[in-house]
Amino acid sequence: MLFHQFFDSTSSTYTYVLASRAGGEALIIDPVKEHLHAYLGIIERLDLRLVHAIDTHTHADHITALGDLRDATRCCTIMGERSKAECVSRRVSEGEILRADGIQLRAVYTPGHTDESFSFVLNPDAPAAVFTGDVLLVGGTGRTDFQGGDAEQSWDSIVNKLFTLPDITVVYPAHDYRGRTSTSIGEEKVANPRIAGKSRAEYVEIMNGLNLADPKMMDVAIPANLRCGRRD
Amino acid sequence: MLFHQFFDSTSSTYTYVLASRAGGEALIIDPVKEHLHAYLGIIERLDLRLVHAIDTHTHADHITALGDLRDATRCCTIMGERSKAECVSRRVSEGEILRADGIQLRAVYTPGHTDESFSFVLNPDAPAAVFTGDVLLVGGTGRTDFQGGDAEQSWDSIVNKLFTLPDITVVYPAHDYRGRTSTSIGEEKVANPRIAGKSRAEYVEIMNGLNLADPKMMDVAIPANLRCGRRD
Repeated sequence: MLFHQFFDSTSSTYTYVLASRAGGEALIIDPVKEHLHAYLGIIERLDLRLVHAIDTHTHADHITALGDLRDATRCCTIMGERSKAECVSRRVSEGEILRADGIQLRAVYTPGHTDESFSFVLNPDAPAAVFTGDVLLVGGTGRTDFQGGDAEQSWDSIVNKLFTLPDITVVYPAHDYRGRTSTSIGEEKVANPRIAGKSRAEYVEIMNGLNLADPKMMDVAIPANLRCGRRD
Repeated sequence: MLFHQFFDSTSSTYTYVLASRAGGEALIIDPVKEHLHAYLGIIERLDLRLVHAIDTHTHADHITALGDLRDATRCCTIMGERSKAECVSRRVSEGEILRADGIQLRAVYTPGHTDESFSFVLNPDAPAAVFTGDVLLVGGTGRTDFQGGDAEQSWDSIVNKLFTLPDITVVYPAHDYRGRTSTSIGEEKVANPRIAGKSRAEYVEIMNGLNLADPKMMDVAIPANLRCGRRD
């Protein structure tokens, strides 16, 4: 497996490029517009053919590279079926499988941070990793106070869906703000301070009491992302 | 497997905490003094017992947390047998195995960046990952112009030792300066611009022509690291 995790230091976003071999097909998850050339560079160096560019949800803190990647590589742009981004080519439903050479990603509907968020399980027959977007973070969970976010749905997505994956499944989030690049299902079960030892009602109270400021780029990023990151 | 990769944004250093389960024994590789409390925090949250704190080599760009971790947790401090840091408890040789609950690391002598650098192969019976320190980086290799560095030894360590690992082995370096968190042996074979398609002589010419400035912290970091990071 060729696996690249990129970090955007402006928005603390992680982007993932996956391929099973040099010369084969590749997938990208949550690409950031400003890093288009880094992604194209690795695609070229490894002689990859990008087949799917995926956003886990409509990001509020950075502009997606989905549209630019589509123009540069003719890849298919993908979001969940409830996304309002009409520009995406394919809108996946619960359980749908995305395929590239030697790679499968299973779409799992995980609302809570937004009402259209999906997670993606790598090679679901023997799950090695899950890309959780903003619903489950390292020792945290994505805010639930805008874009159709809902703390009860967040709990259900995490506890009733993601936590049914094997404990050893590596969790790759869309963000971390303290330099941590991954976690695991088992670790979040026992150590996520918002979830471990808490009830659903306690979680909802925590999330509804966060009172966070809006993301700085929200007014720019959301409209741009509904156009797949194109500014025109 | 519990796996945490930490990033120090001052020196672009990656640190790794490994354990097979919550409540079990843990290892740490290349810890940075300034992040001691982050490491102790995760050790406490996951109820881990730190048994080994390892430096792959004498770092020139940050101060190690080995001494502080030893004082805080009574872990064993470890470097390669050629390290001049007399403070370490255990000095490993080629092929030696370091053990924690459910984890093995095999020490591999990989000089080139320094004359005392070791890499560590995770679970060597079926290698999943290798921690390469500065000898092999993502799309690069560590400089070979100080601390007994040697471009010919660097080539031999990478091509004749690390590249004998399975292509799928994940490579976790001690640094990346562009937000990339890992690579793989197979990828570096085909895409490392200093090595792929190059001869040993060409590599030596590239490395000996880099003319890099000294690391900013070198005069402070090396003496401090020879005392396991203690300033006294």
